[in-house]
Amino acid sequence: MTTTAEVIAQNAHISSTVLKTLSNYERSAALQAIHDAIKQQKDQILEANKKDLDLAQQQKLDAPLIKRLDLSKSDKFDSMLEGILEVANLQDPIGKITLARELDTDLNLYRVTCPVGVLLVIFESRPEVIANITALAIKSGNAAILKGGKESLETFKVLAQVINKVILEKTKVPENAVQLISTREEVGALLSQDKYIDLVIPRGSNELVRNIKSNTKIPVLGHADGLCSVYVDDEADLQMAQRLVVDAKTNYCAACNAAETLLLNDQLSTKDVEFVLQGLINKEVTLHVSAELLDKKLSKDFVAENSKFIVPATEEDFNTEFLSFDIAVRTIPDVQAAISHINLHSSKHTDLIVTGNEDKANLFLNGIDSAGVYWNCSTRFADGFRYGFGTEVGISTNKIHARGPVGLEGLVCYQYQLKGTGQVVEDYGNGKRAFIHKDLDIK
Amino acid sequence: MTTTAEVIAQNAHISSTVLKTLSNYERSAALQAIHDAIKQQKDQILEANKKDLDLAQQQKLDAPLIKRLDLSKSDKFDSMLEGILEVANLQDPIGKITLARELDTDLNLYRVTCPVGVLLVIFESRPEVIANITALAIKSGNAAILKGGKESLETFKVLAQVINKVILEKTKVPENAVQLISTREEVGALLSQDKYIDLVIPRGSNELVRNIKSNTKIPVLGHADGLCSVYVDDEADLQMAQRLVVDAKTNYCAACNAAETLLLNDQLSTKDVEFVLQGLINKEVTLHVSAELLDKKLSKDFVAENSKFIVPATEEDFNTEFLSFDIAVRTIPDVQAAISHINLHSSKHTDLIVTGNEDKANLFLNGIDSAGVYWNCSTRFADGFRYGFGTEVGISTNKIHARGPVGLEGLVCYQYQLKGTGQVVEDYGNGKRAFIHKDLDIK
Repeated sequence: MTTTAEVIAQNAHISSTVLKTLSNYERSAALQAIHDAIKQQKDQILEANKKDLDLAQQQKLDAPLIKRLDLSKSDKFDSMLEGILEVANLQDPIGKITLARELDTDLNLYRVTCPVGVLLVIFESRPEVIANITALAIKSGNAAILKGGKESLETFKVLAQVINKVILEKTKVPENAVQLISTREEVGALLSQDKYIDLVIPRGSNELVRNIKSNTKIPVLGHADGLCSVYVDDEADLQMAQRLVVDAKTNYCAACNAAETLLLNDQLSTKDVEFVLQGLINKEVTLHVSAELLDKKLSKDFVAENSKFIVPATEEDFNTEFLSFDIAVRTIPDVQAAISHINLHSSKHTDLIVTGNEDKANLFLNGIDSAGVYWNCSTRFADGFRYGFGTEVGISTNKIHARGPVGLEGLVCYQYQLKGTGQVVEDYGNGKRAFIHKDLDIK
Repeated sequence: MTTTAEVIAQNAHISSTVLKTLSNYERSAALQAIHDAIKQQKDQILEANKKDLDLAQQQKLDAPLIKRLDLSKSDKFDSMLEGILEVANLQDPIGKITLARELDTDLNLYRVTCPVGVLLVIFESRPEVIANITALAIKSGNAAILKGGKESLETFKVLAQVINKVILEKTKVPENAVQLISTREEVGALLSQDKYIDLVIPRGSNELVRNIKSNTKIPVLGHADGLCSVYVDDEADLQMAQRLVVDAKTNYCAACNAAETLLLNDQLSTKDVEFVLQGLINKEVTLHVSAELLDKKLSKDFVAENSKFIVPATEEDFNTEFLSFDIAVRTIPDVQAAISHINLHSSKHTDLIVTGNEDKANLFLNGIDSAGVYWNCSTRFADGFRYGFGTEVGISTNKIHARGPVGLEGLVCYQYQLKGTGQVVEDYGNGKRAFIHKDLDIK
């Protein structure tokens, strides 16, 4: 077992040194070829996906998981294809000079972007991730090891076949640059290959991410929880607030960028609060309401009429990522209190203020310690495709390296290149040569 | 014990929310005040440093450690002071917009730099680090917990007093934003405060760094080893090669950016090889030479004359960070072999090629997987001050987040701010609204 994982990791490492020497044209052409092959094999892929779905339904897996698994749902397949081409057409992320400085005459420092090296991507459902990650890895010059979950095994196998075949036959990408592992190698054995693997990207349940984080020395990029909050200020446009809350909660409730907590300024009238909540009830969302909201703000009629969708909130509800048609709701005195609540309870993913007051918005934007902080637009925009990154490898709630939706830029690091003409350090210092430290024009 | 560490970490977290709201002027003025106070108390600080040095000599600590401890040595004190002012005068690293994109009409995305949060800095000797880190932390809006080692306890205590007093009396920086911990709190207890601490920066021996890395879930920034290599090509200017090798090895052999391995192209003549090595021998460097070099390249006369400084190399010598006047030397067939040797044996810190051939230099620059890769200049330039970063918190051999010398830019992360006018995700997608994704002028 361990040997196999080591061989896989070592092969990825060796391939990465070849992959990073390919030109942008060669890397992009490979993505086009992969796109064409997946498009051509759509029926075969969806057929395999159907098998996974049938099994998931037989095994009565959770509804959100089944939803994530389904590749035929709405525009998922087309989005996946579109994502590959978008990545292919993005600017080359490698070899970009991000700092150029004259240290001294004929001694020039350059900071140049380069691939991270080898990525290990582990995921459960969401089979479209395979295409996303393959595209991002190849474009950014990184080798990738993809380890799928058993829920999407059939889809994974067919996609792996299609991708491996086209890489081998029609591209300059070396064979082991993208390894799709669908056999039962232990994840643990791969997670211990810190000599060869530079970054682990888990995609899946909170449990999967937490488990991986506590079982590897390799840096992990991603998020365990997506507990997003919406704060509706007393100076909010109520029509807008209702639309945003409904979209953030119900557009795709299984997503990490869906809202889980609603904070309502307690200066809002009963009528205004009920107007916002009515939007959620119309969509059959269950409101977990705080005692204060229930007792002091909502009318008896409203509660009686909607009793089916109103339950008392527990303290834990405000720390819960429901991933379902449930939301925790409470009143809050002001924007500062909303910031405190969110910084304490949120998972530092994406949080929203709805207000017409720019000062309050700026206070919120600067006060919230999350990867995304929004003013008057749905939390559901937190997504690599919507940000124009082509596609994403995940959403990071890390505070170092990449944060928020992670596209190509999150998959490169940089290297300092110093070009001299024989300079030695001995010649610099007190009373000797001084550095020039003049920034050069990067273009 | 644990309670104390938790209180320290929690106080840092609370202070960080205040510190990040200070203006650049307020943060820079604080650095000026700290600079003035340290300058004024120079005698008192050096007196304390002398106590640490005396004790270290009594305890017969290693020579490199004692050298790192000595604050009176050459221009160290003045460099420290200069570093504080340089940091004060650097551009504000917070609030920089690094991406501005119109997603749709009136829906604008901004990526804005922000502090990481709370830093835990743990170090052994090198007492000047206290001033460096304090300056960088305050300028970048990060709270910092500084834990010194017992070797520099006296220096640390006096510096801590001076800094704490001036922060309290003359600056707007909140009291707990920089906590200097000289008591015996367990490092372990601080390392478990991952709820409040965002980044750990160890400064000290390889053992210290390795020990910290394996005992915390918090991201660690830094390097355990500094095993730098120099490759002298057959198209090198030999005078230049000798100067660079001598500087890289002997300018400050206890530093992480000193050379530990010398690779000589085997097309170089005996005379050329001996010329380069003579430079090292003149400085009394012991050469650990490979069997091949000894048997096939060096003349008997040369070996006999310099027998005091020539020993046979073991395999382990090429994986050793000597930190002394020792260097491992071998011949190598070409630049590609040099790249392979270095990527396998180096610690991904800083490596150098000496050659007059630009193609070979570019092959080396693109092939070496290290934080710094140099052409015709000493590895000793790998340093935040020399790069113009003012000062540094350390040199990172991590491949994600910050790499190489880490100054202000390595201490900030970023946040996505999205400003809309009520947009919901439901309105976008196939057959609905399309994104504009137009990059806006950042200025």
